Amino acid sequence: MGKITTRSPFAPDTLVRLEPLEGVRFATAEAGIRYQGRTDLMVAVLDADTTVAGVFTQSKTASAPVLACRKHLKKGEARVLVVNSGNANAFTGKKGKEAVDLTVEAATEAADCARHEVFVASTGVIGEPLDAKVFAHLLDDLVKKAEPDAFEAAARAIMTTDTYPKMATRKAFIGDVEVTINGFCKGAGMIAPDMATMLCFIFTDAHIAAKPLQALLSEHVETTFNAMTVDGDTSTSDTLLLFATGDASVRGQEPITKEGSKKLKEFSAALHDLMQDLAIQVAKDGEGLSKFVTFVVEGAESEKAARRIALSCANSPILKTAIAGEDPNWGRVVMAVGKSGEAADRDKLSIWFGEHCVARDGERSADYDEATAATYMKGREIVIRIDVGVGDATSHVWTCDLTHDYVSINADYRS
Amino acid sequence: MGKITTRSPFAPDTLVRLEPLEGVRFATAEAGIRYQGRTDLMVAVLDADTTVAGVFTQSKTASAPVLACRKHLKKGEARVLVVNSGNANAFTGKKGKEAVDLTVEAATEAADCARHEVFVASTGVIGEPLDAKVFAHLLDDLVKKAEPDAFEAAARAIMTTDTYPKMATRKAFIGDVEVTINGFCKGAGMIAPDMATMLCFIFTDAHIAAKPLQALLSEHVETTFNAMTVDGDTSTSDTLLLFATGDASVRGQEPITKEGSKKLKEFSAALHDLMQDLAIQVAKDGEGLSKFVTFVVEGAESEKAARRIALSCANSPILKTAIAGEDPNWGRVVMAVGKSGEAADRDKLSIWFGEHCVARDGERSADYDEATAATYMKGREIVIRIDVGVGDATSHVWTCDLTHDYVSINADYRS
Repeated sequence: MGKITTRSPFAPDTLVRLEPLEGVRFATAEAGIRYQGRTDLMVAVLDADTTVAGVFTQSKTASAPVLACRKHLKKGEARVLVVNSGNANAFTGKKGKEAVDLTVEAATEAADCARHEVFVASTGVIGEPLDAKVFAHLLDDLVKKAEPDAFEAAARAIMTTDTYPKMATRKAFIGDVEVTINGFCKGAGMIAPDMATMLCFIFTDAHIAAKPLQALLSEHVETTFNAMTVDGDTSTSDTLLLFATGDASVRGQEPITKEGSKKLKEFSAALHDLMQDLAIQVAKDGEGLSKFVTFVVEGAESEKAARRIALSCANSPILKTAIAGEDPNWGRVVMAVGKSGEAADRDKLSIWFGEHCVARDGERSADYDEATAATYMKGREIVIRIDVGVGDATSHVWTCDLTHDYVSINADYRS
Repeated sequence: MGKITTRSPFAPDTLVRLEPLEGVRFATAEAGIRYQGRTDLMVAVLDADTTVAGVFTQSKTASAPVLACRKHLKKGEARVLVVNSGNANAFTGKKGKEAVDLTVEAATEAADCARHEVFVASTGVIGEPLDAKVFAHLLDDLVKKAEPDAFEAAARAIMTTDTYPKMATRKAFIGDVEVTINGFCKGAGMIAPDMATMLCFIFTDAHIAAKPLQALLSEHVETTFNAMTVDGDTSTSDTLLLFATGDASVRGQEPITKEGSKKLKEFSAALHDLMQDLAIQVAKDGEGLSKFVTFVVEGAESEKAARRIALSCANSPILKTAIAGEDPNWGRVVMAVGKSGEAADRDKLSIWFGEHCVARDGERSADYDEATAATYMKGREIVIRIDVGVGDATSHVWTCDLTHDYVSINADYRS
């Protein structure tokens, strides 16, 4: 693993506390998979009848744990989640599948459940065979001693080059019963050295069947995690799982079994808000960043087109280095819009840096003031708004700048 | 313009000499458009009956000169080319078109030709209005004094952050008449600070009609300039023009009027070779580079898929920083293959760094030797070969590494 450099300037002074959730217990261990002197194994034990939804990396070289999760997800049932850090078990061939099989088998026995109820995730170095024997024998004990009040310990065990654990909690009413959603994730974007990479686990005590749960997750991932990038380098291991224990039904929550139920309106909004919170936390821990940047695209043909234009900006090295240099170089925004391939009317294009309009109707704004723009760029949070002038769809992407520290973290230190 | 840093380590010790070509004359001037104490205006005067082919940026925010060239190209006839450096005349709205109109008008009068026979290109800062009055009055004199033996002067006048002029020459027989192809281009990839960006002009005395000329150019651009990237940031101004004066017919060359003529076989190969030479010269002057990198993809479904996979590698910041750090981090190659979206068989994927096989059939190669791989990465020219195991198509992409100097050039200095 690359040398960890300074904490992100956006690391929170105090961490949010995640209260225990009915039906979920955690245990962690120092298994010594790669790191020494820190936890690197996390087990979440889920009550019977827990439903699960998931989304995974689109990579064609997806890791062995991702392939197993995709397969197990079909029934939408979950009892155990086993996550290790230090080794991604990606591109490890037959040995990779064997490591997953051994883990799943040990977890099945420990939790007395079916194979499809076990979910696994690994994060860390790619291509190094993962020896599951190092930790498989620990699972029985971990499942037994798992306890509810341990969200932060769980979040810490799955960190790699993260400079802080990323957690969020929300509450929502389903009918007149209040439910809780707790989530945590790891990842310094898709870019941590030798790491792979974004893992996110969300838990709720709501009673929601797997199908509507999946529908909510798939809907919200587009405008949250899929609207966040550090350098466009999609990992082999991205995994987002949402578990619903259903324990709120004990307190009278009427089970939700159908997609699109109006009763989920508030829950859906809370889930979206929590996912957005976590996605922003990941971008704010992007490697080497000095600034958090939001690109807002308006006036696009479709929401998808707007997001593609925003991503084209957020993944442009030349634009991200200009932002790191506090240079209000809007010509590079024009370039990034142009290269996205999406429709934009060159003669209606307008660009704002914060509230300052730098370009209007396809040329430099008459109000453009270099000093004002330059002062704005010195801020720690930058918002660049672009109207592409062809429609009325809008979207946004969160990212960070590209700094010398990014190069140092990824080039100067051997993994 | 950003501060020019050190010369590329690949800058040639001696420049290739381009001999005069029948039917082409050049003149340059210090017009003071933006730079002081150097030439920034270049005029090429072409004999009557010169044909022309061109390819341009795919950007949706293409510059005013690109839009004019696209329009003029339809008749395939050319008499004058006017190029300025220091200002890209991109994203300059109505003023941009007016500057082009004024330039074209002045060139038309100077060369006594039709509007559609005038081609224009501009490179430099984006968004700054270009005042064509500064140089339009010079064109008459420049056309008059243009001379044949001035390829290097022409190549120098269009440079921006280039650290050396990029030139190449080839000869080929059409029938039993030898013709010459001379070309030069500018661009430190698509990434020069505030610059936009790749301009390439090729001249030949061959007698070839516009249609077959365009067919050759369009065919070869795919495997030459479109197989080269510095950071994936497509400019608003990329322009590649090929002029054929036809003067070789005086020496008995039978005019070629049809696409696919077998008589063009040797010429086509020479043109491809010259375009490849120039494309490699551009990548070797990529900003801040320390290494020149070739990605070769084999075993792909199609040539297009192979090139997309190679481009996914060549545009990956995390992989390019690893190469800058001389880290044989093949896990990042796996990541970049996976994120390309093209078919790859994870369990058949093999990767070579130079001659050293680092991964075979979806896992780390049994022969993998860290020391051997690390030593290879210390070289100045790196070849990474990838077999994706699904077909038999192959392609390649040339690029450079991503270094601290890249960040310095694009972030530390204000434009």
